[in-house]
Amino acid sequence: MFETKLKELDPIFYPKSIAVVGASADSIKAGSLWVLTLISAGFPGTIYPVGSRGGRIADLEIFPSLRQVPGEVDLVIVAIPRQAVLELLDDCAAKNVKAVQFFTAGFSEMDAQEGGMLEKQMLERAGRGGVRIIGPNCIGIYCPEQKIPFLTGTVGEPGSVGFVSQSGGIAGKLATNGIARHIHYSKGVSFGNGIDLDASDFLQYLGADPGTRVIGAYLEGTRDGVRLFNTIKEVAGVKPLVVWKGGRTEAGAEAAMSHTGSLASSPAVWSAMLRQAGAIEVQSLEELTDTLLLLQRIDHWQGAGAAIIGGLADGGGGISVSAGDACIASGLRVPRLSPDTRKKLGTLLGEVGSILRNPVDVSQAQFRGLPTLFEAIESVTGDPSIDIILVQEDIDILLPIYSQKGLDDINDFLVNLSGGQSKPIIIVLPPGAMELERLQLEQRLLAASVPVFSSMERAATAISNADQYFSRQ
Amino acid sequence: MFETKLKELDPIFYPKSIAVVGASADSIKAGSLWVLTLISAGFPGTIYPVGSRGGRIADLEIFPSLRQVPGEVDLVIVAIPRQAVLELLDDCAAKNVKAVQFFTAGFSEMDAQEGGMLEKQMLERAGRGGVRIIGPNCIGIYCPEQKIPFLTGTVGEPGSVGFVSQSGGIAGKLATNGIARHIHYSKGVSFGNGIDLDASDFLQYLGADPGTRVIGAYLEGTRDGVRLFNTIKEVAGVKPLVVWKGGRTEAGAEAAMSHTGSLASSPAVWSAMLRQAGAIEVQSLEELTDTLLLLQRIDHWQGAGAAIIGGLADGGGGISVSAGDACIASGLRVPRLSPDTRKKLGTLLGEVGSILRNPVDVSQAQFRGLPTLFEAIESVTGDPSIDIILVQEDIDILLPIYSQKGLDDINDFLVNLSGGQSKPIIIVLPPGAMELERLQLEQRLLAASVPVFSSMERAATAISNADQYFSRQ
Repeated sequence: MFETKLKELDPIFYPKSIAVVGASADSIKAGSLWVLTLISAGFPGTIYPVGSRGGRIADLEIFPSLRQVPGEVDLVIVAIPRQAVLELLDDCAAKNVKAVQFFTAGFSEMDAQEGGMLEKQMLERAGRGGVRIIGPNCIGIYCPEQKIPFLTGTVGEPGSVGFVSQSGGIAGKLATNGIARHIHYSKGVSFGNGIDLDASDFLQYLGADPGTRVIGAYLEGTRDGVRLFNTIKEVAGVKPLVVWKGGRTEAGAEAAMSHTGSLASSPAVWSAMLRQAGAIEVQSLEELTDTLLLLQRIDHWQGAGAAIIGGLADGGGGISVSAGDACIASGLRVPRLSPDTRKKLGTLLGEVGSILRNPVDVSQAQFRGLPTLFEAIESVTGDPSIDIILVQEDIDILLPIYSQKGLDDINDFLVNLSGGQSKPIIIVLPPGAMELERLQLEQRLLAASVPVFSSMERAATAISNADQYFSRQ
Repeated sequence: MFETKLKELDPIFYPKSIAVVGASADSIKAGSLWVLTLISAGFPGTIYPVGSRGGRIADLEIFPSLRQVPGEVDLVIVAIPRQAVLELLDDCAAKNVKAVQFFTAGFSEMDAQEGGMLEKQMLERAGRGGVRIIGPNCIGIYCPEQKIPFLTGTVGEPGSVGFVSQSGGIAGKLATNGIARHIHYSKGVSFGNGIDLDASDFLQYLGADPGTRVIGAYLEGTRDGVRLFNTIKEVAGVKPLVVWKGGRTEAGAEAAMSHTGSLASSPAVWSAMLRQAGAIEVQSLEELTDTLLLLQRIDHWQGAGAAIIGGLADGGGGISVSAGDACIASGLRVPRLSPDTRKKLGTLLGEVGSILRNPVDVSQAQFRGLPTLFEAIESVTGDPSIDIILVQEDIDILLPIYSQKGLDDINDFLVNLSGGQSKPIIIVLPPGAMELERLQLEQRLLAASVPVFSSMERAATAISNADQYFSRQ
């Protein structure tokens, strides 16, 4: 499927050399920032700054024009005024450039008539010269393996999640959220107005890419709905594909028109289309990120029978009640525990102050020691009706009661449990009064591949999204 | 309205002396923890530890029984086994105690028959002795003014938000979230099984309390629905009342039964009841906290015409698109800016790469300096169709471009703008790769009374909640 896309786009995501057009000795210019960002990210290929005034930037010679660059150029990043782009495309053709990525904006998104005309001319020139266009009005390629970051951004660890985004801002957030939450990307792309290579091309590429297991997408609109639908359907058939559609409302659609020149269809049409194509639809950046974080961790899906374990220390009752609500409202099952499990919990925890149903409130374990707590959690995990385990931790309560040592022991146990059997362990770690300690713990769990969410609602929504995808396969 | 409740409950929220029954020299016991927590919070009245074994805790004498306490006792906090509670209530009566708060659990929430019977007996004894009961199965009173914290918790700055919670865990989260997000409470209470004083009593008290301007509530169920409905209606008529109903689903309701012995009604019944009573219904702890944070800042409500200002630095387009979606989806209006405002923005920012509609993308200001950015924001704020201003900041993008100095200047400007005119300024500050810097900025803004939310969806939901309340008044 789409194997030709691999051959077509791999050289663009793994360029041996990049020219940045619009660089100058002045580091405040966007072109100069691109050069500096590529250097600081450690791009292993050759970087050729290009700018009419020449000079040097970060010890690199700035070539007055692309044609004067001595070596071969695979990818060109462009940050020059739009008046100069047509001539530049001729230069690209002369240099046998594979693709050119336009940071330059001010096309159809600004003025449908004049900007649209210019885009048409760009397409003609590029087509004649055998050059592919990414954008315009975009921040282009992100490829951790090849150390290609977005403008002014850092590049995260390589991984198995790919993304496409019409918007550069949201592409940038996906990249930084990935670094913050240990979502490791294979590659991503922001394609802006997408006049040549567009969502369908990049989705087909990610669908075929053996290094990509999960795909996220932010889309505002498309010029070829049928092709996009067929692409989404085919890609979602082989890999989980999570789509966030921007411009769903009138205010959003108006902004989308100004933003990437996209004509948005009605949200109902999109939702129906995505459902029919087997993709997962999400409604916010948070939900997109949450769902990718969870899917990255999933090898195979057993089902959505969730055990909710609350009250690792005192105070879990109400939290358990609302956790049950959140899971059911998101469409998860919260199955009854087997009589064996309940009996075992009763023996371990006692009846007073415990909730031995599901949600399970294990707060009484604080009076019986950590081994009892661990045994209780293991007995729930082993219950045959349970597919996935949600553990609610609250650092504001745990730290005063167990101290740092106890908190570490509890989380060591959970990390080992997560690695030691097949059911996913998901941690809910809400904000509170000890944000620094919470961030530390969150980072520790995420680094150990344990998904962490700040609320039960967010965890439940992500799980439900995954379940809807896998139960349709 | 409910003025008698003030006289009745003020002495409980402002006790001059507290006895803690169940204290011992062993600081791991819950009773001992209560004593230590009261001391470390700086409770200004007298603390009397009571425990059958006597001894000392933190330099205080432990009295063998409540009757042996030398002075008057206003409030008794109880953490002893349930077998001993009836006798204790006789002691309370003998000492003319005003109220007794039972941390002790294991009543109707565990065993409807036997536990329910015991609760009946408790009510009889307390009624005979003129003693009021809070709980059982609760963490009771929280009163920042009187330096009364929850068990093992700290006490925040006093303020104007009151809360009631059936659940101790959620009451605790409200308290810590208040400290973290600068929601300043007048007072709060967790009332557990609520066999005597219950949600209605405390809501009436907060409704009458002149120090409370806004009220939040977490409820699981009630034994007297009509009284609760009438109370909510009357209280919501004078102050914004935000209600989160736990136990909405079967899993939640089952946990609620085990938790506070509450029989939950159907969620549809609750929603209809809350709507009819003029209360604001929310669906999660996050939404409850978000809505209280916003309401705390609101003096008067102009309307829900929101201006969305995005892209303080590059990359705002897609963020603006989805922000528009989030606001409209939550029921806000995103009005067109007046021709004057649009003209002014065009002059300030130029056309290329800007979105001069609402959502406004002001990213081009980065090339024109901060005074231009500030003028652009001021012109939007001054637009007559705008009631409320949402500013999207992204530290991952702002900090590399503007450095710490520029970021400080931008936020100084926003803080001044917030204080200098009547329209609320709301900041959306999403998570990303620089969490420490983000936390610092968030704390700074919150300390200056500027509400901060981690996503546009959360901000829009809180605003919509406030708008629904005020537009019904």
